[in-house]
Amino acid sequence: MIVIMKPKSPLKEIMMLKQKIEMDNDVSVNVIQGKEYCVLGLIGDTTTVDAGKIRANEFVENVKKVQQPYKLSNRLFHPDNTVVKIKDGSIGGDELAVIAGPCSVESEEQIVSIAKDVKKSGAKFLRGGAFKPRTSPYSFQGLRVRGLELLKIAREETGLPIVTEIMSTDMIDRFVEDVDIIQVGARNMQNFELLKQLGKTKKPILLKRGISATIEELLMSAEYIMSGGNENVILCERGIRTFETYTRNTLDLSAVPVIKKLSHLPVIVDPSHAAGIWWMVEPLAKAAVAVGADGLMIEVHNDPVNAKCDGQQSIKPKVFQKLMKDIDKMINAGMSREYDVVNI
Amino acid sequence: MIVIMKPKSPLKEIMMLKQKIEMDNDVSVNVIQGKEYCVLGLIGDTTTVDAGKIRANEFVENVKKVQQPYKLSNRLFHPDNTVVKIKDGSIGGDELAVIAGPCSVESEEQIVSIAKDVKKSGAKFLRGGAFKPRTSPYSFQGLRVRGLELLKIAREETGLPIVTEIMSTDMIDRFVEDVDIIQVGARNMQNFELLKQLGKTKKPILLKRGISATIEELLMSAEYIMSGGNENVILCERGIRTFETYTRNTLDLSAVPVIKKLSHLPVIVDPSHAAGIWWMVEPLAKAAVAVGADGLMIEVHNDPVNAKCDGQQSIKPKVFQKLMKDIDKMINAGMSREYDVVNI
Amino acid sequence: MIVIMKPKSPLKEIMMLKQKIEMDNDVSVNVIQGKEYCVLGLIGDTTTVDAGKIRANEFVENVKKVQQPYKLSNRLFHPDNTVVKIKDGSIGGDELAVIAGPCSVESEEQIVSIAKDVKKSGAKFLRGGAFKPRTSPYSFQGLRVRGLELLKIAREETGLPIVTEIMSTDMIDRFVEDVDIIQVGARNMQNFELLKQLGKTKKPILLKRGISATIEELLMSAEYIMSGGNENVILCERGIRTFETYTRNTLDLSAVPVIKKLSHLPVIVDPSHAAGIWWMVEPLAKAAVAVGADGLMIEVHNDPVNAKCDGQQSIKPKVFQKLMKDIDKMINAGMSREYDVVNI
Amino acid sequence: MIVIMKPKSPLKEIMMLKQKIEMDNDVSVNVIQGKEYCVLGLIGDTTTVDAGKIRANEFVENVKKVQQPYKLSNRLFHPDNTVVKIKDGSIGGDELAVIAGPCSVESEEQIVSIAKDVKKSGAKFLRGGAFKPRTSPYSFQGLRVRGLELLKIAREETGLPIVTEIMSTDMIDRFVEDVDIIQVGARNMQNFELLKQLGKTKKPILLKRGISATIEELLMSAEYIMSGGNENVILCERGIRTFETYTRNTLDLSAVPVIKKLSHLPVIVDPSHAAGIWWMVEPLAKAAVAVGADGLMIEVHNDPVNAKCDGQQSIKPKVFQKLMKDIDKMINAGMSREYDVVNI
Repeated sequence: MIVIMKPKSPLKEIMMLKQKIEMDNDVSVNVIQGKEYCVLGLIGDTTTVDAGKIRANEFVENVKKVQQPYKLSNRLFHPDNTVVKIKDGSIGGDELAVIAGPCSVESEEQIVSIAKDVKKSGAKFLRGGAFKPRTSPYSFQGLRVRGLELLKIAREETGLPIVTEIMSTDMIDRFVEDVDIIQVGARNMQNFELLKQLGKTKKPILLKRGISATIEELLMSAEYIMSGGNENVILCERGIRTFETYTRNTLDLSAVPVIKKLSHLPVIVDPSHAAGIWWMVEPLAKAAVAVGADGLMIEVHNDPVNAKCDGQQSIKPKVFQKLMKDIDKMINAGMSREYDVVNI
Repeated sequence: MIVIMKPKSPLKEIMMLKQKIEMDNDVSVNVIQGKEYCVLGLIGDTTTVDAGKIRANEFVENVKKVQQPYKLSNRLFHPDNTVVKIKDGSIGGDELAVIAGPCSVESEEQIVSIAKDVKKSGAKFLRGGAFKPRTSPYSFQGLRVRGLELLKIAREETGLPIVTEIMSTDMIDRFVEDVDIIQVGARNMQNFELLKQLGKTKKPILLKRGISATIEELLMSAEYIMSGGNENVILCERGIRTFETYTRNTLDLSAVPVIKKLSHLPVIVDPSHAAGIWWMVEPLAKAAVAVGADGLMIEVHNDPVNAKCDGQQSIKPKVFQKLMKDIDKMINAGMSREYDVVNI
Repeated sequence: MIVIMKPKSPLKEIMMLKQKIEMDNDVSVNVIQGKEYCVLGLIGDTTTVDAGKIRANEFVENVKKVQQPYKLSNRLFHPDNTVVKIKDGSIGGDELAVIAGPCSVESEEQIVSIAKDVKKSGAKFLRGGAFKPRTSPYSFQGLRVRGLELLKIAREETGLPIVTEIMSTDMIDRFVEDVDIIQVGARNMQNFELLKQLGKTKKPILLKRGISATIEELLMSAEYIMSGGNENVILCERGIRTFETYTRNTLDLSAVPVIKKLSHLPVIVDPSHAAGIWWMVEPLAKAAVAVGADGLMIEVHNDPVNAKCDGQQSIKPKVFQKLMKDIDKMINAGMSREYDVVNI
Repeated sequence: MIVIMKPKSPLKEIMMLKQKIEMDNDVSVNVIQGKEYCVLGLIGDTTTVDAGKIRANEFVENVKKVQQPYKLSNRLFHPDNTVVKIKDGSIGGDELAVIAGPCSVESEEQIVSIAKDVKKSGAKFLRGGAFKPRTSPYSFQGLRVRGLELLKIAREETGLPIVTEIMSTDMIDRFVEDVDIIQVGARNMQNFELLKQLGKTKKPILLKRGISATIEELLMSAEYIMSGGNENVILCERGIRTFETYTRNTLDLSAVPVIKKLSHLPVIVDPSHAAGIWWMVEPLAKAAVAVGADGLMIEVHNDPVNAKCDGQQSIKPKVFQKLMKDIDKMINAGMSREYDVVNI
């Protein structure tokens, strides 16, 4: 951590601050006196140093972090890729993990039929919302517990592990029992009480990036889960909020190589929610594969115009099938999808 | 609601869509055939019409809302300002409501001393965090239940009603019992399970705008609480996330007149969290008063450099006193702070 | 265009507005009276209707566009892809067009050597900055006219057509004489005087998207050039400004399929400027190919640590060679890169 | 400047980089070896150090600036406020400077009549667009040279100095001759060729912040003008582009105290362009005064519904008069509008 002192700060104040920082924390402080600015360099483990406290000092101009504030999710201390195991499958290993299914579970017939379709095309996991976070209280809120039951039937029929979103702590026991991967949605990425409780389970957690979360904040939310003892975290890029209004959100594909560099956790991409437009799913899914994602999460519906939720972003089973074939071609073409960082 | 058809859509498809929309919803559909585009105008209550479903139709280019999707918080159906009563005081009436206190409760001495100071300067409510949402799991998380107890002591000593943040549904009973205004923080603005549960209480709820929430989304979150039966909602602008990095967030003061126009709910401003820099609190607080806010929420700490949280944005009691005097001058100057909308 | 009237607007005012709009413009106005809102639907060519004037009416709540405001760049009126011819080559046709070279021209040896390298790896065009827009007046501003001369030498040596950025109208004659593709940088995307003048030439123009420009604004800037008579416009996505700070800008790859749908103009992607980090160029370039871009613009430097400009984002010739081989594999894999819009 | 080395960088590489930086620049480099990270602290004038070059080194993780990159606009080297003199008036001194007038000059009658009105209400400067930057080539582009003539007539009639926007370098001589303050619009804030040429004149320049420009970038653009020899720069906050769509742009009032702290240049606020909605001008203008702005720029039109440009954001002369009276009350109330930075 670097502390930049205000120009012309009295030496006495600088030395007092140095002493205070060293007393409050397990670090040593190096003073560098520049021409206009004096800078303090903190050496040691600064992840627990409270930058706000230092910034409150009236002679401090600014504080800049050097060390990343996350540890358990940090590739620096865990160089190998994490592979999260889910039943017979896994996310983060050599194979691309494709999760597919409808935005929300609507009926047994619907979810079973879609599950069979996506399995046939190569999906390895089934998604489907039971509890739905909707901007409006007047919109369909999901079948809730009944939705979970239907997902289990679809799993029974197809063997596909199921992924669904949790919205509050009081459902955790139920989800641990029923579900294979628990999804934390973008709106709950910083619902810290939920993250803490999920950290006490051993279930794989699919953590979606908040629409205005930085990559660092996403990793800090992963850290909440991991510091509770659960290291089975899968990250998901699903679009960020920008000024562009044609697409619902802007898919930040550059987040994939960045996360790969900073962290050992697997990262997948959800092109359906990002764009919010079904005909953009195909090109964005392929781009996600090319950029190095460990998997995809794709909304597939057999009857989008009658879907109870997000029909506009759902592709039909045949489009999904075509997409999966194209992705196979890409992967088999043998181009590199692991990017290392040597400028030869 | 307006549905824009793709250019050259077959008339048959247009008529089928018209029929389907009329069958699925309690609206009638007007077809306007333009030169390039055909447009459908939906007449009736469109707040429950599922735009996604319509957008899923392959002949639909786009769907645009005309009617605002919120009802209970909408000024259109409730022209008079809502005044939320809290004990002897209120928010939303003629008097400016100032909430002040430390970021987090640290000790009895700290909270009582600050409570006395801010009361003396004119604050009407005491704030103080017991449960703290922190980006890092390694940061101070608040005194939690113990913090609530200390807030009650401070209320006892000063008579100031207390405002503090709730972070999960399992604490609702406790908060209803102990607290005068329950705050929902920016990160939980779309924690819909929490909002629904709070809608079942009668407690005043201080709902902060999420850092990337549109004004419409903020009103929809208020709608969640109100549709549960609790109309005591106070909105709070506290800065939005933009590309500018000098300030932590960008205080969106234009949100105040916009909310005043769209809604009858009171709206206050938190300049401390917005900028994240203590010396900006004073100018931004005055600007908030000038722009027509119903109140302010300000962090005051007697010893910012030792604060356990957000010391960098806390002003000292003397600065707060000076600020309150200046605000008094502004208000007494007799300029208008209610803005109507007639271009004479 | 749709005009939404304020609730309870007097019928007389509505009819007067209808009349005024019809008188001022070559459109007819349809009145749709809803329950709360009255809506006017304008039929005819609304691209020249002044929405601001209508919004200034005190009974108007809002105005929404239906028709896209651009004509010449609109795929609606020009369904086939535009292919821009440059000497023997072209951009927008079947072949991927790769433009490569250093950020700025530094010396004859440098530009000629890099030109040879990138040609060998398959680049079809040479880029190199002569006039450099730099945030700081104290940074290297380019070799300017001397840089143009060196580019011409490199073209002479390799046969590669040259692309370089123009910064002011007084250089247009020179650029038309010397350069094969004239680049308009992101900062000048709305330098309308420059666009108008370029519209009078016949040179291919590479128009970069401004860092905060919507896709619609980019197409409107193309419209400035095209309405002057020059239809040789190539668009370039190069990252937009968001709240994320790890990357310099956020590459908006979803812009590619959107532009392809809205416009017939070719669109290429510049991954170097977007991320601002050399090791992200490779994954982002491949993603751009997968998403359907017509070409790439890539910074290559033989000695990045001594580059006079943007060394941090330049890849070395060997990395470029490896990238080009991988891109060949992708393209030869035979997956579709043209995305149509039928949800089967 | 602080250079953060990658973890486990070889000492030899670190020492070579230190040597290279010292050789390339007039600075000395301090090496601080932390537990995980090694950090280099550069001492000396780092405004001309090329951070990109250093970041291109493969052992460098990141580079952070300590020193601000602007000098002439920096308050550090020029503690007193700059007061820009314009004829008998000034901007930046004790008195609030109000610039008012129509978006664009439309006719002699229009501009003279509005000029008289705003003067009567207390405006000190007349604005009016002659050359208009419009998103669409099909929109009214201004009366251009004829507009300048009409502005001169209005100045003749009222004595108000005139402010109008320049759009290209070839008009500089004309503007220097005819105009009292030359405005550089938001879209041209980084039109560096224009800035350089304006730096060679002595005319006061009103430099508007680009809609996606950071405060630092705004100051760097001022630096372009000042480093050419023209220190008469007035800055203008006019709204930034964010995700919020209710307002056209988000007025960033926190930029005012930030600029006041970082720079000695005067800063004014344009609430008309920011919101793009006339009924928001009044509250935002007062907020701008409260936050400490040196002046205001306000669009006033006598007939907004027939304005040729931006009628929706123009207030009528009577609303302007009422606003000016209220501002007088605020200023006379005696509250402080200069904010210093001591947390007592």
